[in-house]
Amino acid sequence: MNQDFSASRLQNTSRQEIRELVRAQLESLLRQRNYEGAKSLLVPVQAVDIAEAIEDLPESMQAIAFRLLSKEEAIEVYEYLPPNLQQEILTDFHRQDVLEIVESMSPDDRARLFDELPAKVVQKLLRQLSPTERDATNLLLGYKPDTAGRIMTPEYVSLKQNMTSAQALERIRTYAGGSETIYYLYVTDDARRLTGVLSLRELVLAPPDEKIENIMTRDFVFVHTDTDQEQVANTIKRYDFLALPVVDSEQRLVGIITVDDAIDVIEREVTEDIYTLGGLESGDDDYFQTNLFTVARRRVVWLLVLLITNTATHAVISSQEDVLDKVVALAAFIPLLIDTGGNVGAQSSTVVIRGLNTQEVVMGKAVNVVRRELIAGALLGVMLGVVVTVWAYIIQGNFPVALAVGTSLCAISLIASFAGAALPFLFRSFGLDPALMSAPFITTAVDVLGVLIYLNFARWILRL
Amino acid sequence: MNQDFSASRLQNTSRQEIRELVRAQLESLLRQRNYEGAKSLLVPVQAVDIAEAIEDLPESMQAIAFRLLSKEEAIEVYEYLPPNLQQEILTDFHRQDVLEIVESMSPDDRARLFDELPAKVVQKLLRQLSPTERDATNLLLGYKPDTAGRIMTPEYVSLKQNMTSAQALERIRTYAGGSETIYYLYVTDDARRLTGVLSLRELVLAPPDEKIENIMTRDFVFVHTDTDQEQVANTIKRYDFLALPVVDSEQRLVGIITVDDAIDVIEREVTEDIYTLGGLESGDDDYFQTNLFTVARRRVVWLLVLLITNTATHAVISSQEDVLDKVVALAAFIPLLIDTGGNVGAQSSTVVIRGLNTQEVVMGKAVNVVRRELIAGALLGVMLGVVVTVWAYIIQGNFPVALAVGTSLCAISLIASFAGAALPFLFRSFGLDPALMSAPFITTAVDVLGVLIYLNFARWILRL
Repeated sequence: MNQDFSASRLQNTSRQEIRELVRAQLESLLRQRNYEGAKSLLVPVQAVDIAEAIEDLPESMQAIAFRLLSKEEAIEVYEYLPPNLQQEILTDFHRQDVLEIVESMSPDDRARLFDELPAKVVQKLLRQLSPTERDATNLLLGYKPDTAGRIMTPEYVSLKQNMTSAQALERIRTYAGGSETIYYLYVTDDARRLTGVLSLRELVLAPPDEKIENIMTRDFVFVHTDTDQEQVANTIKRYDFLALPVVDSEQRLVGIITVDDAIDVIEREVTEDIYTLGGLESGDDDYFQTNLFTVARRRVVWLLVLLITNTATHAVISSQEDVLDKVVALAAFIPLLIDTGGNVGAQSSTVVIRGLNTQEVVMGKAVNVVRRELIAGALLGVMLGVVVTVWAYIIQGNFPVALAVGTSLCAISLIASFAGAALPFLFRSFGLDPALMSAPFITTAVDVLGVLIYLNFARWILRL
Repeated sequence: MNQDFSASRLQNTSRQEIRELVRAQLESLLRQRNYEGAKSLLVPVQAVDIAEAIEDLPESMQAIAFRLLSKEEAIEVYEYLPPNLQQEILTDFHRQDVLEIVESMSPDDRARLFDELPAKVVQKLLRQLSPTERDATNLLLGYKPDTAGRIMTPEYVSLKQNMTSAQALERIRTYAGGSETIYYLYVTDDARRLTGVLSLRELVLAPPDEKIENIMTRDFVFVHTDTDQEQVANTIKRYDFLALPVVDSEQRLVGIITVDDAIDVIEREVTEDIYTLGGLESGDDDYFQTNLFTVARRRVVWLLVLLITNTATHAVISSQEDVLDKVVALAAFIPLLIDTGGNVGAQSSTVVIRGLNTQEVVMGKAVNVVRRELIAGALLGVMLGVVVTVWAYIIQGNFPVALAVGTSLCAISLIASFAGAALPFLFRSFGLDPALMSAPFITTAVDVLGVLIYLNFARWILRL
């Protein structure tokens, strides 16, 4: 109905008037930062009129108006723009003032207003950008951080399925200069949809007059622009690929991700994992380049969490103060119990968290893994318990105290192994990052239960 | 002189007799496991006679006798062996009884007796082995664990430099089946020495009648069979290579390592780093498949080290027992101080150790990095000190005690940051693994100094 209405209106008003009307309203709405309104305004307008209205907007608004269009509209409008304006809009994508306007929108607004870009626009845009410029245009591109859209490159060779292998090789010879890899070749149809993949190896080994459609693989692996980069890297790793195609929601090819970029992703993700295990919040920036206040802020979070857990530990020790008051020598073994318990727990959680991250350990095996760790904890506990009883007796000379230390260490080792193995599974099943969540809870379990067990064993063994 | 002597002896004795003499002596020495003697016996003997002597040995001894030859002798002897015996000796490389004999030699003996294998033998051998079989023959191959020799594959395409690019493509079409990658091609001379590298891309883009020597890169990157696999992976990562050639000490091409194997190496090395940071000794086997006693043994080492460090902590607390005896409430804050100190130290050591492993941090920057961490530690210390003083006052109600806790936490944070940042550099400069060595020493520094500072601050603030 909208279409009919605007078409009939078109017959009564001159095109020039409509264009001016739309332009004026659009400009006013954009100046008011009423993006929702601007988006609604454009819905009933014909693509050709939108194209001309955009042409007349101030430069800093052209790219933003274009990004408010739905994907289907954007494809059409783009086709109506004269080539120099197509170019200008793409250039605006990394103009500082344009980016500042977009930056001032709330992230939700941006996500709601910005539809996916047409494949053709993405390719043209990415092709003219250096990696640094590409980074700067991320806002207008609308791809979320750490997704395939952010790390893909447009530098690939695409072929048509009715080419012969000789024609394809000829095309590669002509266009290979701008391609990041020519070892994987991508076959697209007229609508830019990815229909097949073939390797240069297959092409070189094929007879010269063989059609591409007979050589290409139709059952290929691909990712979407919004696929998480870690999953992209894992896919490349699992299949030993040299590159992976990235498509939009309509299966149109928009870029590729090469194995060297996947290695960089693996490196960054591993650093993130290691930082999280080490109790540091990880950021996108380089730790050694970040200013020290940011560093302190990122580190203090974990340490403040420790305060909360230690409130419980403090309460437990305070409630048992009479035991310590009678045999103050018991206090000197608290560091050993806490250190050892913390380390046994860290050992178990390290292997489970690393296993979950490398997909070596799956959720379905949780019970098996936890049982294994429990048995390992028991073995460790017995070994340590015996050694520590002897050690405590030697350095302190009081056998009942030594026995209390040894037996509680055995129990703590069991608890720590269990908590270290079980908590990562628990947090993963809630959709939380096990590396981030496990350590504070393991510390609490070990400290609170450990001290409680120790002082009660002492009370009982020493008959206090 | 030896050569002359055996040559003159040859004129007096029949070839048959010499062969029988060498064979009998060789067999007897091998039965006595006198490999040094066997090696000396063969030095003055002519290659052709060694070849025939080996031919007459019992099957299980043939491969071992062959492996005792120096590289130069091995090349010659191998050429004299009839093709079926060449084949048999290679097959013996993964015969169980042969491997058992080699396994029973001491590793030093093996290393001293086994010279590098000739490139031709390596290639022939690797070509007929599956990866699992290759793993089993490692003993007889003589490549050390975690070196390029262990992970290389012989499945590459080699070219000659006087071929034209059309001839090269023809050769690739014919031989590509058995190659792991055809995207990098290796040019060797008649002595199998690697003289150049070119990519399939360069070959495809070159005119058909261009000579390979005009396209190939002479200034290529390669590794040796004994290069550490981590360095191999780093080289592939740094240069974004898809494969890397492996040469022996005479620059003869023996294999290649592909990017997917490099990714596997990165994964394994990262797991090793993470395990070490988590306080577990890492082994070649899969943690989740290893039997539990091995697991317990690998984990107990770190925990026993903690005992030694805690002897010092115990001594410090015991020597300050009078303070605790007077104000037993002080004991309840010991877990907080130890936990926080341990975590601040772990944060600093995590970033430094990860930085050293990824080569993001170099030894030359040690002073800068440690200074940064000291300042971060001071910032953290002040923030935590204030918060903790308030927290301790709230939960315990005694301001002097709270002040003692807060001020000592500030000092502990400084010490922990310093120890966490400085110790990895110190251990690396001694050629030790920072991840393995740092944690126990950081724990000691934090526990001993932390408790000492705490109890002395308390003594002074509370005027005990």
